[in-house]
Amino acid sequence: MMTMDINAQTQFCGVIGNPVEHSLSPAIHNAAFRSAGVNCVYLAWKVEAIADAIRGLRALGNFRGASVTIPHKVAVIPFLDQIEPTAQKIGAVNTIVADKGVLTGSNTDATGALRALKDAAVDLRGRHVVIVGSGGAARAIAFALAADAQLERLTLLGIDDGERIALAKDLHAFCAQPVDEGPLDETALGKTLPRAHVLIHCTPIGMSPKVDGSCVPPPLLHAGLAVMDIVYNPRDTRLLKDAARAGCKTIPGLEMFLHQAVAQFELWTGRHAPIDVMRRVLESRFQ
Amino acid sequence: MMTMDINAQTQFCGVIGNPVEHSLSPAIHNAAFRSAGVNCVYLAWKVEAIADAIRGLRALGNFRGASVTIPHKVAVIPFLDQIEPTAQKIGAVNTIVADKGVLTGSNTDATGALRALKDAAVDLRGRHVVIVGSGGAARAIAFALAADAQLERLTLLGIDDGERIALAKDLHAFCAQPVDEGPLDETALGKTLPRAHVLIHCTPIGMSPKVDGSCVPPPLLHAGLAVMDIVYNPRDTRLLKDAARAGCKTIPGLEMFLHQAVAQFELWTGRHAPIDVMRRVLESRFQ
Repeated sequence: MMTMDINAQTQFCGVIGNPVEHSLSPAIHNAAFRSAGVNCVYLAWKVEAIADAIRGLRALGNFRGASVTIPHKVAVIPFLDQIEPTAQKIGAVNTIVADKGVLTGSNTDATGALRALKDAAVDLRGRHVVIVGSGGAARAIAFALAADAQLERLTLLGIDDGERIALAKDLHAFCAQPVDEGPLDETALGKTLPRAHVLIHCTPIGMSPKVDGSCVPPPLLHAGLAVMDIVYNPRDTRLLKDAARAGCKTIPGLEMFLHQAVAQFELWTGRHAPIDVMRRVLESRFQ
Repeated sequence: MMTMDINAQTQFCGVIGNPVEHSLSPAIHNAAFRSAGVNCVYLAWKVEAIADAIRGLRALGNFRGASVTIPHKVAVIPFLDQIEPTAQKIGAVNTIVADKGVLTGSNTDATGALRALKDAAVDLRGRHVVIVGSGGAARAIAFALAADAQLERLTLLGIDDGERIALAKDLHAFCAQPVDEGPLDETALGKTLPRAHVLIHCTPIGMSPKVDGSCVPPPLLHAGLAVMDIVYNPRDTRLLKDAARAGCKTIPGLEMFLHQAVAQFELWTGRHAPIDVMRRVLESRFQ
């Protein structure tokens, strides 16, 4: 690994969240900066007082930007100077770019999901996509799809009626693409999945340590379905294993995590990200 | 040089000042952290809004401390939680230590000067010390001497009457040690230096680019005098060259800069500093 000497010109980024002590972002971004010869370091900041943190980062020279994660993705918005349109629609920011004192909020969770699908050669145009879950990640991905993907149809299935219906309504207001929604149960899955082309799982089910969980009964999976899971720990979730067994193309959550980080790197540096280096760091953590 | 991978546990420090782009502190402290295997990085922060900067650093997890330099050494005090007694007397802080959310201000300019003299085997006990200048550095060094060194006598010579007289008065109030003061001119120097043992130069005279300047006429220098210069750029100032020619023991400003950094390292890490590594980094910048 290259050594990059930190000097008085070194810029810095970091992840703002709580907790952050298990974040993979410092490893992946520092490896990327080093590999690309970018004079920048990336730290991890556990933050409770988000307003103070943002105000303070504004006051510190060499601040280049931040990743924002739970629980601050929504709360951070009022403290930034401008919010990119998609992030505004999503109502959540996972990336801050500091440029000459102006802080701009973006959402690369959204673009990261689309890039991961594209990278895996999953066609979206004219396809029927099912999103399971209606929380922040589902919202980000749904808006990214609605903005860019020209789907045939988007179906939202989730257990939180209020959240899911609100998301469907916001999507309707945003674009002409057909959106339907319903509760997340076997009946709804059984009606929807057989005709669907892409399934994107956006709930925490299956995440370590409860690695045996899955929202989707294996008999409903079929070879015509591409399955992406936002859960990335473990790398191969129960859902992805079931999907692979059913002949589905599978896209692990690591790829989405990787691509949101790649998009952040590009926003902070204006350069192409060393994606292979970043993927290697990520995968080394899950062997 | 060892490579230290930055991860989610990496702590961070930095220098708060304006300007900071030529600061040597990032080079020296990062080399020290790496060499000692301390999982910490050190950045440079140009800061205008000192209150915001401190409030923000409090809000960022993994913040371990900061160096404070011009123009914030006095202004930072109200925003810290406690000030060490010597720093309080000096009225200036050059070091912040963050410990479980409590920010403590110290002044290692003071201890750094004493350590540099001690390291050069300059006796202070029972000696007559002359300080030239009455600004922040003079004040820090005078209080450190008054607190620890058991001098025979301390003489302050400076061009700013108000500042110099106030400093002498504050020193009188602080300790029983004899302090006298007077204007900085050839008459005063001619009366004082022949009987003095240590001369500490605390004005900017002789600093690059005006490297030919010196406050002290060479004929007044004598082999019984140890001469320390706080100016460290150039390493060998006109005063130090004159002093060496007169047979004086000389202590370059680099040594004082080194020792204030060594004391900072010890405050942040609780460990002995890798002083040879730090000296090597500093000297490499002045070859």
